[in-house]
Formats: sequence, structure tokens, C-alpha cells
Amino acid sequence: MDGYWEQFKTPFLCFAGFSGVGKTTLIERLVTRFHEEHTRIGYYKHDSHRFKMDKAGKDTARVRDAGAGIVVINDPTHFGVLADNDFKQRTVTHALEQCDCILIEGYKQSPFNKIVFLDAEGKLPIPSDSPGIRAIVHQGTGAPEPFIEQGIPLFHRDEIEKIFDFVNGHFKRCASELFGAVFVGGQSTRMGKPKFSLTYDGISGTEKAVKLLSKFCNKVFLSSRADLDMGSLTKINNVERI
Amino acid sequence: MDGYWEQFKTPFLCFAGFSGVGKTTLIERLVTRFHEEHTRIGYYKHDSHRFKMDKAGKDTARVRDAGAGIVVINDPTHFGVLADNDFKQRTVTHALEQCDCILIEGYKQSPFNKIVFLDAEGKLPIPSDSPGIRAIVHQGTGAPEPFIEQGIPLFHRDEIEKIFDFVNGHFKRCASELFGAVFVGGQSTRMGKPKFSLTYDGISGTEKAVKLLSKFCNKVFLSSRADLDMGSLTKINNVERI
Repeated sequence: MDGYWEQFKTPFLCFAGFSGVGKTTLIERLVTRFHEEHTRIGYYKHDSHRFKMDKAGKDTARVRDAGAGIVVINDPTHFGVLADNDFKQRTVTHALEQCDCILIEGYKQSPFNKIVFLDAEGKLPIPSDSPGIRAIVHQGTGAPEPFIEQGIPLFHRDEIEKIFDFVNGHFKRCASELFGAVFVGGQSTRMGKPKFSLTYDGISGTEKAVKLLSKFCNKVFLSSRADLDMGSLTKINNVERI
Repeated sequence: MDGYWEQFKTPFLCFAGFSGVGKTTLIERLVTRFHEEHTRIGYYKHDSHRFKMDKAGKDTARVRDAGAGIVVINDPTHFGVLADNDFKQRTVTHALEQCDCILIEGYKQSPFNKIVFLDAEGKLPIPSDSPGIRAIVHQGTGAPEPFIEQGIPLFHRDEIEKIFDFVNGHFKRCASELFGAVFVGGQSTRMGKPKFSLTYDGISGTEKAVKLLSKFCNKVFLSSRADLDMGSLTKINNVERI
């Protein structure tokens, strides 16, 4: 198992199950949903077998067969990299940490957070006391007793919207809180009046900045001289004057 | 053209020419030679057309089609990455800078160092006064006048060994000099005699370290107290006592 996942900053979730239980199909459907929400989603397929990505006879395949440790190809929209595992850690880490979140197919033996798929008979791919089990996906069999007792969420594999909400919520909980800060003030020596009070389109620059940040931030801090009137701004829900 | 190549630390050389002049074949044969020399060689194919690396219906292709910005797959020996160009700069830079050197197919309009291929009629793909032309490869036509006057090396495209020597020499010249340093000494309070004089397999630790470094370094600096006898060591060609 790759040690670098343990220190990985971007939230990820593993999808663990026997072959044929529908892992890729579920991931594909979740990715469609994340894509609709403009989330930059990454997919990592941890495969213990040999994979073949390139076609024999293509330039990249020929040069790789000749012994290039790494080959890269690009066009105006996308790029591809094929390389020896020596190059993997730095390449993959730097690539995937640019995503908002990552769905990993595999790593069922890992201690990482995972959604576990039951097979058609309701059989688990790993012992029920394995670490990191966050939800169970079944095909109509329901979940084994211990999970019901522990209150671990159970989904049918076709309940895409519910699974999406669960996965999305999981990633949101993994993310660090985002704070905003607006600093207003200055001596107003050259302008003669506080710059924060200038209005554009009927609202002040300060108000514009605070409202913009408050949409995306868990909390927005507004810093100014005590004698300035910030009136309505501090009434916005997540805004605190400091 | 990608700005990041300009600040790229790993030496690279472009192979520029019209389609069908044998760029990939030459690169393939050079890569074989570099691989024999245990050089970690990278290949970058700069392609203005659309490339297709993955097969329709494969897990990675399905998830990518669903909207994953990046997909990664691996097995015990190698890995593959397919991603939107948004992910390119950091991924490719971090991947390729792990190589000793890189052969780039394309970028003929760039100012970068390049080997230029003449076509079967001896026609150049770029003006003869273009920047960065380091060598000319022909198919039997010889080189146009201006290159002969400027003393730019000319190779037939089948002269692999000569081209390899040229490219290898080019990369060696691009590389920074490597220096080594061996620090010996200490008070010898606990041991009673200088540690540097201890022998293993009949030679001292210091000698072993100096000889090992001198194989790979342009220069090896040996630092010790002035009163220590370093005798034979400073007679090695690239060793300097400081």
C-alpha cells in the first residue's frame, strides 16, 4: 500500500468490493454528479493486475517499449502520461492534489475511509470489523447485522442521489474550514473620506467584498477602526467584526 | 508554447521536422541507446492534433468520459495518467524533472535547442535562421549551405551512434558540474587515533569515500586538519585538499 496516501491533503474515499459488484459503474455515476456541481474530481484505480492503456504501434508505445522511463503526450485539451512506478509518487501526488476530491477504486485492505460493496449474495469483501468502513452498498440483500447496530449508512447501489449526498457530505466534512477577512481603513489623508464608503453600483466596496466572501467562507472577519460605522454589514450571518 | 519549459531544469532537446521524416523512429533508437547506458530518459510528444490513449469502455475511459478531470491507473510496474490540461503544468513538470534528460518530439516553432530533420527532398521545416538549431538530420540530401558555413553538425538519420554521441554530449554539457566533499578529522579523543585511518578491506574509509566520489564527480574536495597525512589521496586526478 502506498504510504503517501496517509499524508495526502486532498480528501479521498475508497470504493472496495469484489470484482463485478458495480464499483466502476457507481463511480462513473457519482463522477457525473460531481461534474455537474463543478467539482474537480479525480479517479484513481488501484489495480493489482497489469493494465494496458496505450495501443501497440503508437509513438508513445514505441518509445516506451524502447526504454523511456516516462512518456508524455498532449493535445489542446488533455494530456497523458505513462511511466515506470519509480516516477509515480511525485507525479501522482502532484497531479491529484490539484483536485477537490478523489474517488479511489480499490485499496480494500487499507485502513482508509471506504465504501464497501456487498456482492449479490450479501457477502462482504473484507471482515466486518475492518477499519475505515463508512458506508455499505448492497444489491438488494440489506446489510449484515453489525453494520445496522453501528448505524453505518446503507445504500442500494442504484440510490445514486443518496450516495452522492453521502459522499459529498463526507468530503465537505474532510475539508478545512475556509475563513475570509476584509481589512478596511487607512488614514483617509489623501481622499479626505474613508475609502470603504465609496459605492459602486449602489453598494460600497467593503460591502461587496464581505458579501462575496460570505457566500464561500464559513466565517468572514471584518477589521476596521472602532470609530467607523459598519452598520448593516455585521448583521450578515457569518460576519464578525474584529 | 508552454512557458514552463523555459525554466525547466532537466536538459531537453527537441526533434523538429515534417511528418514522416522519421522523428519517432530516430527517437526510439536513441532511447534504446540511452536505456542501455542506464540513463533515465523521458519522451514528450507535443501534438497539436487530438491523441487517443485509452480504449473506449475501459474503466479509466468510462470515468473520464463521465467528467473526471484526471484519472490514474497503476499496476506493480507502471502507471498511467489521463487528465485535462488544467492539471498539466504541475503534473508534467514534476514527472519529467525526475528524468536525467528528455527528448521532445515537436515544438519546431520554439526557440529551444533542437535537431532539425530535412525531408526527402532536403527541405527544411523551419527557416534556416531559426533559433536553437543544434544539428541537422538528412535522408541523403546533405545540408543546405548556411548550416555547412556555420559548422552545424550534419547526420544521416541512420547514423544512430553518431547522433547518440552528439545528443549525449549535448546533455552532458547542459548538466551542472557535480562536486564531492569528504570531511575527515575530529579530536580523536575517544578513539585515541584518527578515525580516517581505520581500514576496511585494506583501504581506509577516507580513501574509499574519495575514490567512490571521484568516479562520479568533476572534482572532489578533501577537508582535514593540516597536520594529518593524506598522502596518496591527493594524487588522485580530480581530488583537491582544502
